[in-house]
Amino acid sequence: MSPIVIQKPTLLLDRQRAIRNIERMVAKAQRSDVRFRPHFKTHQSAQVGEWFRLFGVQAIVVSSVTMARYFAQHGWLDIVIAFPVNILEIESINQLAGQIYLGLLVESPEVVHFLANNLAAPVDVWLKIDVGLGRTGILWSDVDRCIAVATQIEAKSLLSLRGLLTHAGHTYRARSKTEIETIYHDVVARMNQVRDRLLATGIGPVELSIGDTPSCSVVDDLSEVDEIRPGNFVFYDVMQLQLGVCQEEDIAVAVACPVVAKHPERRQLVIYGGAVHHSKDFIIDNDRPVFGYVARLTGDGWGPRLPGVYVSGLSQEHGIITADEETIGQVQIGDALAILPVHSCLTANLLREYVTLEGEVLRCYQIG
Amino acid sequence: MSPIVIQKPTLLLDRQRAIRNIERMVAKAQRSDVRFRPHFKTHQSAQVGEWFRLFGVQAIVVSSVTMARYFAQHGWLDIVIAFPVNILEIESINQLAGQIYLGLLVESPEVVHFLANNLAAPVDVWLKIDVGLGRTGILWSDVDRCIAVATQIEAKSLLSLRGLLTHAGHTYRARSKTEIETIYHDVVARMNQVRDRLLATGIGPVELSIGDTPSCSVVDDLSEVDEIRPGNFVFYDVMQLQLGVCQEEDIAVAVACPVVAKHPERRQLVIYGGAVHHSKDFIIDNDRPVFGYVARLTGDGWGPRLPGVYVSGLSQEHGIITADEETIGQVQIGDALAILPVHSCLTANLLREYVTLEGEVLRCYQIG
Repeated sequence: MSPIVIQKPTLLLDRQRAIRNIERMVAKAQRSDVRFRPHFKTHQSAQVGEWFRLFGVQAIVVSSVTMARYFAQHGWLDIVIAFPVNILEIESINQLAGQIYLGLLVESPEVVHFLANNLAAPVDVWLKIDVGLGRTGILWSDVDRCIAVATQIEAKSLLSLRGLLTHAGHTYRARSKTEIETIYHDVVARMNQVRDRLLATGIGPVELSIGDTPSCSVVDDLSEVDEIRPGNFVFYDVMQLQLGVCQEEDIAVAVACPVVAKHPERRQLVIYGGAVHHSKDFIIDNDRPVFGYVARLTGDGWGPRLPGVYVSGLSQEHGIITADEETIGQVQIGDALAILPVHSCLTANLLREYVTLEGEVLRCYQIG
Repeated sequence: MSPIVIQKPTLLLDRQRAIRNIERMVAKAQRSDVRFRPHFKTHQSAQVGEWFRLFGVQAIVVSSVTMARYFAQHGWLDIVIAFPVNILEIESINQLAGQIYLGLLVESPEVVHFLANNLAAPVDVWLKIDVGLGRTGILWSDVDRCIAVATQIEAKSLLSLRGLLTHAGHTYRARSKTEIETIYHDVVARMNQVRDRLLATGIGPVELSIGDTPSCSVVDDLSEVDEIRPGNFVFYDVMQLQLGVCQEEDIAVAVACPVVAKHPERRQLVIYGGAVHHSKDFIIDNDRPVFGYVARLTGDGWGPRLPGVYVSGLSQEHGIITADEETIGQVQIGDALAILPVHSCLTANLLREYVTLEGEVLRCYQIG
């Protein structure tokens, strides 16, 4: 193993932890006999995607047409774009639909109508259901609309109604594992209710697909659904840790950041590592915004989180770490510290490349 | 002019507005007889940089060694890196110092000592002074430390003490133009006090450099300092608008985002355009977090902000717009809307390319 030289903010990736996270989710999906369709928006990297292939994963989900094209170019042939169809990208959608087994998400009659008139190749369609998050989808209780759109889809020759899909993102607001389990069971009940009503009108039985990392991590038996689509679990992060969804030793990424200044009088360290590296997502911990937890780099990764030490502020390139007197005394300018990200998806999206603990560089696709 | 085709989130740049913003700041700097050293971290683009050259700008400031290398490659020969020296990048710093007229920022004896032992070419050194923001720098009132570090710099042959530099970022917390002016005058008084004390010990007279967009936009006469370093003013944004620092028609960038879903029952539109496009920076407006204001696209740009319409939520790729009934009724799926960014520096950093209203694509440097 070559030691990793840190010169600027560097996204470290503990391959063993990520693979263990993948392995655990694969095993749970197998036990529950559900399809495992991981969300690749978290890592955005063809090379990290290969790790999923080792476990036989063949179907994936992404959050944009751009991402779907990238993974299709890297040999993924069964991709769902879990984002309401953006009709302005119909040309790219048609190209993809001609190349791979493509799944789209719809929630409105206008979009079904547009697709029926503009699609050039067959696609699977998932009806997006809002089970309580209130972001996108047809409200689960609005069964008439669900039936109307499903019926409309069934009537179009290039559209094949595959199932009902939801993202129960309100698990992120839960306060305990029990609350996450309760939300999950409510979600499944609501999805089943829609499925049953569709069946009663002669549609289906269609599949059920659910997708948030908290539910998929906490609930043991996922056999009531047909497909799970977690994404964040591959890396986890401080937000998931605070939710109780992962252990600290499951967090597979950390941003190594050089210390550039010390201010013992206000118990602060300044790091090179700001909003353009970590993102401005934060958690509230002890009534204070926290933009990351802090650990020491070791020869072969990073150590346990330093209690009471946290990223208390971010500007474009600066991070401010608030710490105890002892830590301030020990850390020197020119040291690097590991910052555990609050939201690993956004951090990976910003840094766009990983360095594994073995020193290998893995890239995300290029933007801009 | 070719009409701009929007297919996905696209950072539109109104070249005329940006050039007017540059022109106005150039004129003010000339009137005040101060050096105009614009901060290029906002746009991060060699092509946008060329617009400054039209007005004779030759000296710039950046926030990282990476950015300094990029602009040096594009012919900028006088660059200050306005970030505490990251000693782990000494190799790149030495390369730059051998190629261009390089300015560095220091605030600690350790770093001066390190530079004295490791620099391979001469550099200008600016002493970073904390005039009240509490992020980096030696506290203005700690004159003994200012003198000690300045004396240490003066004793090193490759280090040339150029001046005192500060970022009065606390103007961003001001509630009125008057408050910004008051902060500015306090800042100048504090900087002058340090300069005078240095002079009394035989050091200098050194230059004074200040840098925040609010002060540089609001204060008419900047002649008390030697150099101004605003950056954000080239584009401005919703945060500056809320501060009263710019007019709406000065905002030179907007993210064009496709509308993908409508939820009239909760007066919401869903756009393709989330945290990975806008950043999660927000302002508080009417006690609510606002992630962007909303305008209609016109044939040749965007129109005035739609009153009462705003981006109320962001996830990775989704944006939620809250709007009045009339707007919801008028906007259709497949339309694109212009989102005025809360913090244009972070938005540009994420999207990494601009499309001018004339249809020209301008790029930022590549990351990852």
